[in-house]
Amino acid sequence: MIKAYIIAIGNELLNGQRIETNSSWIQTQLLRLGIQTLGVSVVPDEMDRIVASFQDASELADVLIITGGLGPTDDDLTRSALAKFLEKPLELHEDLLGEIERFFIQRGLPMASTNRVQAYLPAGAKVLPNSAGTAPGIYAQKEGKHYFCMPGVPSEMKTMYLDYVQPEIASQPGSGAVLMSKIRCFGMGESVIAEKLGDLMKRGRNPLINSAAHRGEVCLHIVASADDESCAQKMIESDRNLICGLIGQSVYGFDDQTLPEAIGNLLKKKHLTLAVAESCTGGLLAKMITDIPGSSEYFLAGWVTYNNQAKIRELDVPSAWIKKHGAVSDPVARAMAEGAARKSGADLAIGITGIAGPEGGAEKKPVGLVYIGLFFDGKTETQEFRFLPSGRTAVRQRAALTALNWIRLKLGI
Amino acid sequence: MIKAYIIAIGNELLNGQRIETNSSWIQTQLLRLGIQTLGVSVVPDEMDRIVASFQDASELADVLIITGGLGPTDDDLTRSALAKFLEKPLELHEDLLGEIERFFIQRGLPMASTNRVQAYLPAGAKVLPNSAGTAPGIYAQKEGKHYFCMPGVPSEMKTMYLDYVQPEIASQPGSGAVLMSKIRCFGMGESVIAEKLGDLMKRGRNPLINSAAHRGEVCLHIVASADDESCAQKMIESDRNLICGLIGQSVYGFDDQTLPEAIGNLLKKKHLTLAVAESCTGGLLAKMITDIPGSSEYFLAGWVTYNNQAKIRELDVPSAWIKKHGAVSDPVARAMAEGAARKSGADLAIGITGIAGPEGGAEKKPVGLVYIGLFFDGKTETQEFRFLPSGRTAVRQRAALTALNWIRLKLGI
Repeated sequence: MIKAYIIAIGNELLNGQRIETNSSWIQTQLLRLGIQTLGVSVVPDEMDRIVASFQDASELADVLIITGGLGPTDDDLTRSALAKFLEKPLELHEDLLGEIERFFIQRGLPMASTNRVQAYLPAGAKVLPNSAGTAPGIYAQKEGKHYFCMPGVPSEMKTMYLDYVQPEIASQPGSGAVLMSKIRCFGMGESVIAEKLGDLMKRGRNPLINSAAHRGEVCLHIVASADDESCAQKMIESDRNLICGLIGQSVYGFDDQTLPEAIGNLLKKKHLTLAVAESCTGGLLAKMITDIPGSSEYFLAGWVTYNNQAKIRELDVPSAWIKKHGAVSDPVARAMAEGAARKSGADLAIGITGIAGPEGGAEKKPVGLVYIGLFFDGKTETQEFRFLPSGRTAVRQRAALTALNWIRLKLGI
Repeated sequence: MIKAYIIAIGNELLNGQRIETNSSWIQTQLLRLGIQTLGVSVVPDEMDRIVASFQDASELADVLIITGGLGPTDDDLTRSALAKFLEKPLELHEDLLGEIERFFIQRGLPMASTNRVQAYLPAGAKVLPNSAGTAPGIYAQKEGKHYFCMPGVPSEMKTMYLDYVQPEIASQPGSGAVLMSKIRCFGMGESVIAEKLGDLMKRGRNPLINSAAHRGEVCLHIVASADDESCAQKMIESDRNLICGLIGQSVYGFDDQTLPEAIGNLLKKKHLTLAVAESCTGGLLAKMITDIPGSSEYFLAGWVTYNNQAKIRELDVPSAWIKKHGAVSDPVARAMAEGAARKSGADLAIGITGIAGPEGGAEKKPVGLVYIGLFFDGKTETQEFRFLPSGRTAVRQRAALTALNWIRLKLGI
């Protein structure tokens, strides 16, 4: 099996100014080709340290993925360090220089003379074209090991990796396949899911299944290793079916699908429209719904009735109910949902009122207490939730996601 | 000067499942003591690799910060690897065992026998207490070098670092002080700011000033190195004053203050109230405003009038204007702001209408075109913006932030 090592170059990765995220993304991509990453080193912009890191990593791994240090300025040393490590001179590539010049002309920008250095490569190395910036990547080989240098800017690196590095690595003999898939769940606790899945989550099993919980959402990661991709894909699908059979109702999507996206698809499929009336979530629920491109097809309107007057005036919440039960109460959530439905004409409407904190809590109505009303098909239901213990952001997030999940369940999953 | 090296241990940091964020946080903390980080290595749960990483790092640095691998299971090897590297046996600490047992008793949980291993330390090493979990940290010395092993869980690591590791490092001779501060700006481009700052941003200057731009916001980082903290603090303050003199109007805050927080403070100070009417931002502006605890003091209400009917019905936008100018137009933004002000009684009101994309653009009204109306003091002004080229999320974010910044400028910075 091919093994990889990642080297990230740059002072900015060592002074707390930037979190190094490239290596995690690259690891995931490499696993798709069955390639494990044996280590990551973050190295400063210093010639000797960079050359030494190439040396050390080449003793462990077959493929070295190097990011950063390809810019035009004096502290960009990857190009020269690779030449030094390979013991090859740097050579000017006229065609590359032309491309860099074109990059600036197309954007109507002047090209600094320092950018010329980016047209130099160690002798015998190949160019990895950069469609998103001026810094070309470099691919070199030495004693059967492969060296891929890419820019540190994540967007440029990702495009270059997918277009040029991945095909090159995949063409090497000896790579198997590791596929990953996610199952996204809401409304069932992590430990309950683990209990229902039982031996499926055993360590050492292939596919390996892990769970991660965040604000009421549980994400199951399935990692399947096999000789080839189609075989790994079959294993993933088989596990997906097994899992959906065990915890079906709580599964709302797969891989990178979000809950607002899942709800959007359901509403479009059923030709239904939606409106929301928010107090404690303060626009977050509407924001989540309208994050989705094309949401204007089903989302009609939202109200952020943050004070009592707005609730009474905009949504016809009876002021007597607020006086009797308080603004954070079951009847007010109901009236908000019904007001939003009546005024917008939407098929479905949500009303949310609660105490997000950190202030405003009381013994009977603590921070985290949230009432949600759901109007659908001429009827309104309400539910009480206590999202505890957690901060303002978490209470608001969980309240909004819980409302979305209720819509999902109401529409028959 | 003392130099540091960070080693992060764990397979989960090498299979794309988790982004390693601890080292960036630790780097920032070390810089406060004037200590530079020379490198970071991410190492798998393998005995030989861990021991080798201790060896390699100790040749470069004086202080080694090690995270992860202190749990109770078989793949947690940091404890034994440190003992092997130090050439010391592991010894049972009875008092530590008692504390771990108490941790479980207090939580009413059974203690697995595997947790016993966490009470063993290499001979001569000191315990770093863990107030948030069961895994104690370890502090050892060898040949004048310092080894601090902490848990990988960020919350446990941070508490342990601040309570025990930082004081220990600070007590070493030879540490200076490096302080960092941020100046947050909006409404002035990064290159314009750089031009106005001139030599202040020169490389090699102390304090060192860097800029980073994100969605219309520019953040200036000031890093001052001095013999002691109060001296560094004075250098920071002097630079802050210089910079505010040069780009004053664009500065909205310092360090971690956000634009919604700055606007909230201004509104509270001036006893003014706010309402918003949103179309393309779909609740994002209201969400940003209500992210701030205590925003109910000045935020009255928001409308997400996502379709035309809602604009006409809820905010009295004349339907003739929508027909004549389109929903994304100057008059509609004006009418939305005025409608929100009239209905809520707020002193200030914002109306936003635009095309967030990816669909819905046209030649005359492309994706990124946004109109904002601002009602204040009986008058309404409007502005046209073209946030190009960028995606749906960026257009929405920039539109909401631009509206907030306009409020700031309107209130006299």
